[in-house]
Amino acid sequence: DLVILAAPVRQNLALLSELDEYVRRPAVVTDTGSTKREIVDAARLLPPRFRFIGGHPLGGAAVSGLEYARPDLFKDRPWLFTPTSDAASEPLDRLMSFATALGAVPEVVDVDTHDRLLAFVSHLPQLTASALMQVVGEGVGERGLGLAGRGLVDTTRLAASRAEIWKDIAATNADEVGRALDVLIDLLGDLRRDLETGDKLTDVFRQAEYWRRKLTGSTS
Amino acid sequence: DLVILAAPVRQNLALLSELDEYVRRPAVVTDTGSTKREIVDAARLLPPRFRFIGGHPLGGAAVSGLEYARPDLFKDRPWLFTPTSDAASEPLDRLMSFATALGAVPEVVDVDTHDRLLAFVSHLPQLTASALMQVVGEGVGERGLGLAGRGLVDTTRLAASRAEIWKDIAATNADEVGRALDVLIDLLGDLRRDLETGDKLTDVFRQAEYWRRKLTGSTS
Repeated sequence: DLVILAAPVRQNLALLSELDEYVRRPAVVTDTGSTKREIVDAARLLPPRFRFIGGHPLGGAAVSGLEYARPDLFKDRPWLFTPTSDAASEPLDRLMSFATALGAVPEVVDVDTHDRLLAFVSHLPQLTASALMQVVGEGVGERGLGLAGRGLVDTTRLAASRAEIWKDIAATNADEVGRALDVLIDLLGDLRRDLETGDKLTDVFRQAEYWRRKLTGSTS
Repeated sequence: DLVILAAPVRQNLALLSELDEYVRRPAVVTDTGSTKREIVDAARLLPPRFRFIGGHPLGGAAVSGLEYARPDLFKDRPWLFTPTSDAASEPLDRLMSFATALGAVPEVVDVDTHDRLLAFVSHLPQLTASALMQVVGEGVGERGLGLAGRGLVDTTRLAASRAEIWKDIAATNADEVGRALDVLIDLLGDLRRDLETGDKLTDVFRQAEYWRRKLTGSTS
């Protein structure tokens, strides 16, 4: 009586449309995708015996596959749920207990807010890391990469991610990710025009240092 | 008889101009700055008793200060030297022995090549990490940062760097850093326009994954 869709985002959308055929009994349905608006919208078409609440566990590892399964994957990590305003409270309670049982910290968030926040804290960093790795690799070649230090290695760790999963995420959150990308592109343009004088650079570095302290204060 | 200028880039340039006054004996002079063209040019004005060869040790840590001194800072890391074509071989030999004695791996590189390569493997990642941290922090605020995972934390580790040092680096390598930034900005623009379809994303992610494997094969 609990169905969890844990495939990439657009496969989850396809699975949702087949649910009526394969699951005959009433069930609480959730998913674990990184974007929430499309699937929450699509779930409105489910037969009334299904109670859908979007979910997004923020644990996770860089590697995938059953051989990397580990019991502490979600431990102390947020698990976001995006119930619609007309949702009954019982299905949500059940999902939150389930998340808690896995060691996660369940949290309720508005579906639009979810997609906007994740565009910034997850989708933008991923696209940036992959783009940066491609530009640097192409720019200097394998021998040049031998000069790289820990800085480049850390900055591009996300670039090991697989395209298939991120294609779905980008497509289903294109407006918010696009807006976040615009802000970054503009700021890089400002830095580019200011290299000789460094006023903007000083400004950005100081603010970045500030936010970095907030970030590590809250996660590491 | 060995002078090492180890201040930020533009302070080194200032020190170079005062060398004649403070060091009366012949000496081999080097520096440890992250950009090399300006200081190598400036060194041409030194009196002939000084033999200048630019140097750049690629070890280093995120933290600075005497309390963080450690004996393995340069161990197995490249130490680049940028001798001019008219340089005698004896000063270079001496500097390379010195670097070797500290555990580093000395390597000779053309001064223009140095500044181009470092623009990609070091300066561009630094500016990108700081800009990204500023955009994400500003975009979601302190509470939103609480949702960030290891991905954002790693991608922005460099954002803890200090503005003062990087202002000098950007100013003395503005042309090469500018070119590298242009390539990244263009690619992010391509990704931005392609979010819905994901063709460019697939392309970039696959190449990034390829370069990432080359990078970690060569450094970690």
